[in-house]
Amino acid sequence: MRRFVVIGTRATASPDFLLIDLPGTSGRLDVLLRCVRAAFLVSHGLRRDTVVYLVLLGGPAAPRSLRIDGASVRFLRPDERSLAVLAQKALAAPCEGDGFVTVKPGVAVAAGGLEAVLDDVGPGASYVLDEGGADLRETPVELADPVFFIGDHLGFGEENRRRIDARPAVAISVGPMSLHADDVVTLVSNELDRRTLGVAARSTR
Amino acid sequence: MRRFVVIGTRATASPDFLLIDLPGTSGRLDVLLRCVRAAFLVSHGLRRDTVVYLVLLGGPAAPRSLRIDGASVRFLRPDERSLAVLAQKALAAPCEGDGFVTVKPGVAVAAGGLEAVLDDVGPGASYVLDEGGADLRETPVELADPVFFIGDHLGFGEENRRRIDARPAVAISVGPMSLHADDVVTLVSNELDRRTLGVAARSTR
Repeated sequence: MRRFVVIGTRATASPDFLLIDLPGTSGRLDVLLRCVRAAFLVSHGLRRDTVVYLVLLGGPAAPRSLRIDGASVRFLRPDERSLAVLAQKALAAPCEGDGFVTVKPGVAVAAGGLEAVLDDVGPGASYVLDEGGADLRETPVELADPVFFIGDHLGFGEENRRRIDARPAVAISVGPMSLHADDVVTLVSNELDRRTLGVAARSTR
Repeated sequence: MRRFVVIGTRATASPDFLLIDLPGTSGRLDVLLRCVRAAFLVSHGLRRDTVVYLVLLGGPAAPRSLRIDGASVRFLRPDERSLAVLAQKALAAPCEGDGFVTVKPGVAVAAGGLEAVLDDVGPGASYVLDEGGADLRETPVELADPVFFIGDHLGFGEENRRRIDARPAVAISVGPMSLHADDVVTLVSNELDRRTLGVAARSTR
């Protein structure tokens, strides 16, 4: 199972953002929602072996975290507005107590930030996306249950980065340009696809 | 200069789609708009060396094509709604005569489909994304002015594929999974970044 943990430094943990101005009213939740599309949706299908955590650290309801599990999520659509509606409904649900509470199939919310996510993820080979990290293509990756930590346009925040490094996590990079978080998810997913499925399968058709 | 040509088999060439239901009212123009984000927007910047053509073959105003030129486009935002507004305004402009007509800085429209785009692109090393193609990572690419042809979720259409193959174009694939068009753009861009900029630059910081 692949796990992606995306940190939204200012992404709102409240449902009171506007669908007609997502970037301007949600603390750039749009950046994180695009990661959901990139992680799950492939041509005519959905990656069932993937789990995405969005760590929402912005707004008065923060910190909260969203978990989307490909194994059980239903009706996941690729367009940003549909994903925003899904997040809005999930964040409108009551959220108390410890750990993740399922609000609809495959979608759960926790009252907590990275620490709640780390408790839920448990141990596992960890990788942190870092522009100074080793090239992913040249880095061995544990293919069974890897966890990838990705910052948003503002990074991770010092305390969160310290927690990630303490797991420990291997610092990796995906290329010479600094990219949007969703492109990073796409590139990591492609590298994992290549390692698990091989590249020859389709080119010999 | 990198050129991406994305075919929207049913993507609307009219501005009369609804921003609140882009996938349902635009013939999946959303798929093509996400390609625009993937092609141009990087962290805190825009790829000025890239041109994207969207070939819109759906609806009563079809065929029309949109051209977005990174060298001169302004205020390009990553969220889908902003990109849809840009397309809607461009498609509302009058569009007659031959070739592309600039409707705002860096954005032009032509009354024509792939044939209008091919006239504008001119000669150049061409590559067509094809699940049966050779692995991009193992394929030599002309780095000066390559053109990449990408189909949407329905492919290219027989006649358009014939035209592309006739340039001729090298069939390439990006991995073992069949992916959304925007993920393909991300993967091609990353490979070109690696070949033009190298991968060591950041990992030695």
